[in-house]
Amino acid sequence: MTQNLQQSMLEAIEIELKRQVSRLDEPRTKLFHEMLTYHMGWTGEGAGAQATGKRIRPLITLLSVASIQEKKEKNSSDNYWLHASSIAAAIELVHNFSLVHDDIQDNSELRRGRKTAWIKWGAPMAINAGDALFVIANQAALDLREHYPAEMVVRAAAILNDCCLDLTKGQFLDMSYEERTDLTMEDYWPMIGGKTSALLSVCTQIGALLGYAQKEKIELYRLFGYNLGLAFQVQDDILGIWGDEALTGKSAASDLVEGKNSLPVLFALEKNADFAKRWKQGPISADEVRAVAALLEKEGGKAYAEKMSEELTQKALEYLKQADPQGEAGESILGLANMLLKRKQ
Amino acid sequence: MTQNLQQSMLEAIEIELKRQVSRLDEPRTKLFHEMLTYHMGWTGEGAGAQATGKRIRPLITLLSVASIQEKKEKNSSDNYWLHASSIAAAIELVHNFSLVHDDIQDNSELRRGRKTAWIKWGAPMAINAGDALFVIANQAALDLREHYPAEMVVRAAAILNDCCLDLTKGQFLDMSYEERTDLTMEDYWPMIGGKTSALLSVCTQIGALLGYAQKEKIELYRLFGYNLGLAFQVQDDILGIWGDEALTGKSAASDLVEGKNSLPVLFALEKNADFAKRWKQGPISADEVRAVAALLEKEGGKAYAEKMSEELTQKALEYLKQADPQGEAGESILGLANMLLKRKQ
Repeated sequence: MTQNLQQSMLEAIEIELKRQVSRLDEPRTKLFHEMLTYHMGWTGEGAGAQATGKRIRPLITLLSVASIQEKKEKNSSDNYWLHASSIAAAIELVHNFSLVHDDIQDNSELRRGRKTAWIKWGAPMAINAGDALFVIANQAALDLREHYPAEMVVRAAAILNDCCLDLTKGQFLDMSYEERTDLTMEDYWPMIGGKTSALLSVCTQIGALLGYAQKEKIELYRLFGYNLGLAFQVQDDILGIWGDEALTGKSAASDLVEGKNSLPVLFALEKNADFAKRWKQGPISADEVRAVAALLEKEGGKAYAEKMSEELTQKALEYLKQADPQGEAGESILGLANMLLKRKQ
Repeated sequence: MTQNLQQSMLEAIEIELKRQVSRLDEPRTKLFHEMLTYHMGWTGEGAGAQATGKRIRPLITLLSVASIQEKKEKNSSDNYWLHASSIAAAIELVHNFSLVHDDIQDNSELRRGRKTAWIKWGAPMAINAGDALFVIANQAALDLREHYPAEMVVRAAAILNDCCLDLTKGQFLDMSYEERTDLTMEDYWPMIGGKTSALLSVCTQIGALLGYAQKEKIELYRLFGYNLGLAFQVQDDILGIWGDEALTGKSAASDLVEGKNSLPVLFALEKNADFAKRWKQGPISADEVRAVAALLEKEGGKAYAEKMSEELTQKALEYLKQADPQGEAGESILGLANMLLKRKQ
């Protein structure tokens, strides 16, 4: 049953995303449209479920809407969450806009196993394609006006754009940190708060808002999403060093090889022992990665990150419990949160 | 008197722009904030009036608001145009977002005589700075809610974002055309419609909307802005080839040297005579530029562009007359339009 609801939502999300992106589908801008449909995973080599990503953000948004059942009169039909599909699409488009620009900024050649947009069409075109994704995200957010009062549309659009500014701040910090070796754990949270948690908290906050939840409940949903994002990011840091792929040393994905300022690393830098000495000497090669990961684990970096991840997970789940999401959608959110927080890869 | 009104508006615009951009003015993001204040012309080497640009777009927006005097009860104070200053700032921020990304895409090292953002801080940071300008533009647009009903805010924000999509389409066409030698005049209008006219038509359209003009009048303001933008762009094309600086051949700004697909060039390409042959042979050097400009003039490219510019100017002024802008602001718009259309550089 829950599976069916999620499936219906995922289908609605894909339809809405395609409808929004089709704004570029005109004779003169066919190639421009193709850049976006390729990046979204619908067309070109390797298109399909692997290429689209999991659409976690819009799914959490719609589940949040559907899990609020306070104003039944406003939410008359069973599928009233459909009314929010344009903002769910907007959030996914914001996420994808940031990926397209990130890939240029990080010089990444692959995304989900496929060539990145800038590799295929050059950086100038890819910058413009990312810009278009962001513009369409805003247009999609404003499309809410077909189903919601203008006051709520303005509020939702403002929440989304406030979050987008946090994304750019997080991106700025991330890029600034690349050249620094004097970072502490204090520098970590503002960066990941912007980069990961901001958008997840928008999903749950806007979802609750559009389900006509009361102010206090909207805040609980927001806090759930925010802490879910933080826990997810810390887990990502752990997997990026001690996940199966990272430890083989063969994958360029190892965060140690890439010099990423992850939480375990910042913990050990503050300790200023053997790991810190090695880190400051320069890049870590694939051959070394096992030994350095072991050193980092010995100095407590892994245990600390695991403890933080566990605390944040508990916090997220506590807020979710207080928010008291209802029905099938409520169960589904809990299931999704558990899945995200217990992933092994 | 008109001078005073324009001066008051320009001051209000600058204050509002600074207030909006100050969203990045936090201890951790000082450098990020500085990137934006530098680009806006307020800080860094060469800061000042030369570096800010003329703020034509927000000025036309506020003049349009002030030139509507139909609903006196809504516009009770003399300075009621101040209420629209956040959207005027939003439009200027959109313009500047597109400049920051354009400079990266075009590999331009200078903008208004100063180093471009990507030259100073690298392309990855400059992409992010451009993104932030666009986010703040959207936040500024939504700030209208402090003074306008939510329905009008949503409408204005939707008009602005529809225009932004046109900007990305225009940019796409512009970049696509760079490699093509088979273009005709039919390809010209969709490109400049997106690149120049879209934003100018938004200034006059949103201005009239926020002045509480009736639907028909809003449309006349929009058409005025749109044709003003087209006329301005065609003039720009003429000056880029036969303007004083372009003809000396010393400046890299000559559109012929840069291979720009301007209207005179597309006219001559369709004629497929001597100019077209030379154009298709490859880049034109600074030494040649005078001779090629003379050839283009001989084949009628200049006369055709001048005729089009004149027609579009008349069209713009006709729409403005029909729109019947009132008072000091109305006179000021006409003065500004005349200034823009009769410029020599």
